[in-house]
Amino acid sequence: MGLVVQKYGGSSVGTAERIKRVAERIVATAKDGNQVVVVVSAMGDTTDELMDLAQQVSPVPPARELDMLLTSGERISNALVAMAISSLGAEARSFTGSQAGVITDSSHGKARIIDVTPGRIQAALADGAIALVAGFQGVSQDTKDITTLGRGGSDTTAVALAAALKADVCEIYTDVDGVFSADPRIVPDAAKLDTITYEEMLEMAASGAKVLMLRCVEYARRYEVPVHVRSSYSDLKGTLVTGTMEELPMEQALITGVAHDRGEAKVTVTAVPDHPGVAARIFRAIADAEIDIDMVVQNVSISAQGKTDITFTLPKGDGPTAVAALESRRSDIEFDQIVYNDHVGKVSLIGAGMRSHPGVTATFCEALAEAGVNIDIISTSEIRISVLVRDVELDSAVKALHKAFDLGGEDEAVVYAGTGR
Amino acid sequence: MGLVVQKYGGSSVGTAERIKRVAERIVATAKDGNQVVVVVSAMGDTTDELMDLAQQVSPVPPARELDMLLTSGERISNALVAMAISSLGAEARSFTGSQAGVITDSSHGKARIIDVTPGRIQAALADGAIALVAGFQGVSQDTKDITTLGRGGSDTTAVALAAALKADVCEIYTDVDGVFSADPRIVPDAAKLDTITYEEMLEMAASGAKVLMLRCVEYARRYEVPVHVRSSYSDLKGTLVTGTMEELPMEQALITGVAHDRGEAKVTVTAVPDHPGVAARIFRAIADAEIDIDMVVQNVSISAQGKTDITFTLPKGDGPTAVAALESRRSDIEFDQIVYNDHVGKVSLIGAGMRSHPGVTATFCEALAEAGVNIDIISTSEIRISVLVRDVELDSAVKALHKAFDLGGEDEAVVYAGTGR
Repeated sequence: MGLVVQKYGGSSVGTAERIKRVAERIVATAKDGNQVVVVVSAMGDTTDELMDLAQQVSPVPPARELDMLLTSGERISNALVAMAISSLGAEARSFTGSQAGVITDSSHGKARIIDVTPGRIQAALADGAIALVAGFQGVSQDTKDITTLGRGGSDTTAVALAAALKADVCEIYTDVDGVFSADPRIVPDAAKLDTITYEEMLEMAASGAKVLMLRCVEYARRYEVPVHVRSSYSDLKGTLVTGTMEELPMEQALITGVAHDRGEAKVTVTAVPDHPGVAARIFRAIADAEIDIDMVVQNVSISAQGKTDITFTLPKGDGPTAVAALESRRSDIEFDQIVYNDHVGKVSLIGAGMRSHPGVTATFCEALAEAGVNIDIISTSEIRISVLVRDVELDSAVKALHKAFDLGGEDEAVVYAGTGR
Repeated sequence: MGLVVQKYGGSSVGTAERIKRVAERIVATAKDGNQVVVVVSAMGDTTDELMDLAQQVSPVPPARELDMLLTSGERISNALVAMAISSLGAEARSFTGSQAGVITDSSHGKARIIDVTPGRIQAALADGAIALVAGFQGVSQDTKDITTLGRGGSDTTAVALAAALKADVCEIYTDVDGVFSADPRIVPDAAKLDTITYEEMLEMAASGAKVLMLRCVEYARRYEVPVHVRSSYSDLKGTLVTGTMEELPMEQALITGVAHDRGEAKVTVTAVPDHPGVAARIFRAIADAEIDIDMVVQNVSISAQGKTDITFTLPKGDGPTAVAALESRRSDIEFDQIVYNDHVGKVSLIGAGMRSHPGVTATFCEALAEAGVNIDIISTSEIRISVLVRDVELDSAVKALHKAFDLGGEDEAVVYAGTGR
């Protein structure tokens, strides 16, 4: 008998009718001889509606109370799914994150999971019941207050439970068929990947792919939980996130996919003195404003005056705050001006095979040049090449790279057998 | 410094605007130098809407899951009130019934409170915060599952907390000005009572007055919690439920009010053998169907055949079930027929003074006779006279009794100074 953890998102349980469909799928999984634990997000737009209500009574709702409020959404959907399962003749019990043993720190709104002690879940499974667990929430170890986990929290709840219960797989049900070699809305012949390693999925998520949140993949990798991303609207197999790069054959240059991100902006601090400490003061100013930085470029100082420019990217929404933070420290940092550009886009090529094939970078740049796309910044990791380009050229860049690396397919996982390019 | 427990019903917090008004009243109470604990029901029709959702996914929702679902309503409203209080500059923390230490048995949907251990509430108060507690819910001592308390559960939560915290008063905010000498919709000159004893309030509640549920008054009496029933729409004093009959002066015939109940039906089991055991079998059949009986009348057997009729009243909704239960035991009980009449109404006169004034019963019957109202059944207690009449004569009966006992007033508590009638 296997143990399966399933997660269903808000649109999958958006109406009574959809809830009944989800219940049917859950019961079918149990009838196949599995113990089943299900994590459900709040119905449809419930979370947004509750946030809206909160803002009507209080412009700046206290974080503790916001968590008490928002967690009602998951409580409602999980109880309803449990009821729907019961009406199909199977036994089901719903639990809050706290009851399920999801222990967190006390950062309301973005709590991190410290531990998972799923005693009551195991007891329910032992009784032959299907367990429903409210996603996106836990209880603070210190204060015993209810906490929410931030974006992608339900996926993280599911993976964390799968790890604690040593589940055979964690199935994430979503509204796409799986992880693709590129966004199918930009590249019509994008191929659904059969499998992808944890590290590649991490890079995809960090590079803009929205199907799974970074923290959820990190958790899965750390505890070696196989994650099956699949569609809640069909029975087709999706994409299995499992395995590490070390397990892949070295000689094949595996290029997995192209990710893109329209959400970044570029900040250039010009003519800063080129001596130790200046870059530190710039990034400390940004860090103090609690802004995460992505790509960073500092050119070699060529000017006789010993000045250089420092460029970095960050989420668009944080742009104005970052500029203000730097302006306020002008005397400290001594720069000429701050150039802010939010008409940029980031394109990334991801693949474990890059490690052993230096030619990939050349092919990458040639493909973009042929498509007339100018490269602004380049940033790389062991298995990823990212560039910043003009936002209006983003789609062309994605298409060009996808074609150059032969990633298009017809429902086959793509393997770029090494041609040494 | 006093400790005040306040309870606000669903319509008092039905919209964001009303929530803000309630928050203002709570903060004003705290500014008067009180520690404040507030129990809030779910917003408006939330509970009904959730029930409706439940029925859409499952015709017979499992009780445990229904409680998990319905309790979300109170969680939402309490968090919102806490937020509104915060935006007024005061500190507030919301708690579920479980977090507040409301311990119950495991009867989902109609749980009884076993104990209240309000440690976290006391800690919040000691920190100078206002505590919000979700009404209508608790946690089962045995299973640790969330339970709901049934009708009037939020009032009961408030009184139970007031008892455990030794509060100075429990204020129940509602949409009427207080407890009246009769329903103002039937008797326009009904007077708002300034005070009423626990026993009289118990009789009023048991006789059809809907302003406070019986169990809530019982709890208040047992722990001697003063309950102030008042309007959430004004600052007028309401009715204070406090004190026992023993504390009232004996000589004054205090008649407090007239209550009525349109929700009962009458069942007569005719020609049952008049020997020991028969009545027991009838009432055992009804009890096995989990139906509560109110008034009971058995006439003296006058027939030569040793037969008699047994009549009792019960809630209208249970009528068909009761008749079916008796029919199914026909051979066991040996009756002739069952006569069912749901066109009846109950009128009750309540007052501590009845104990010492036998003339009250006579005045009662004369008033009804003069109004042309025929008495079907009479049932009395130490401080109450109830009669069953034809439902179309109910209003006339209420008016006649109210007048006969001079209960009308102009914002004064009514005292029927003994005239020996």
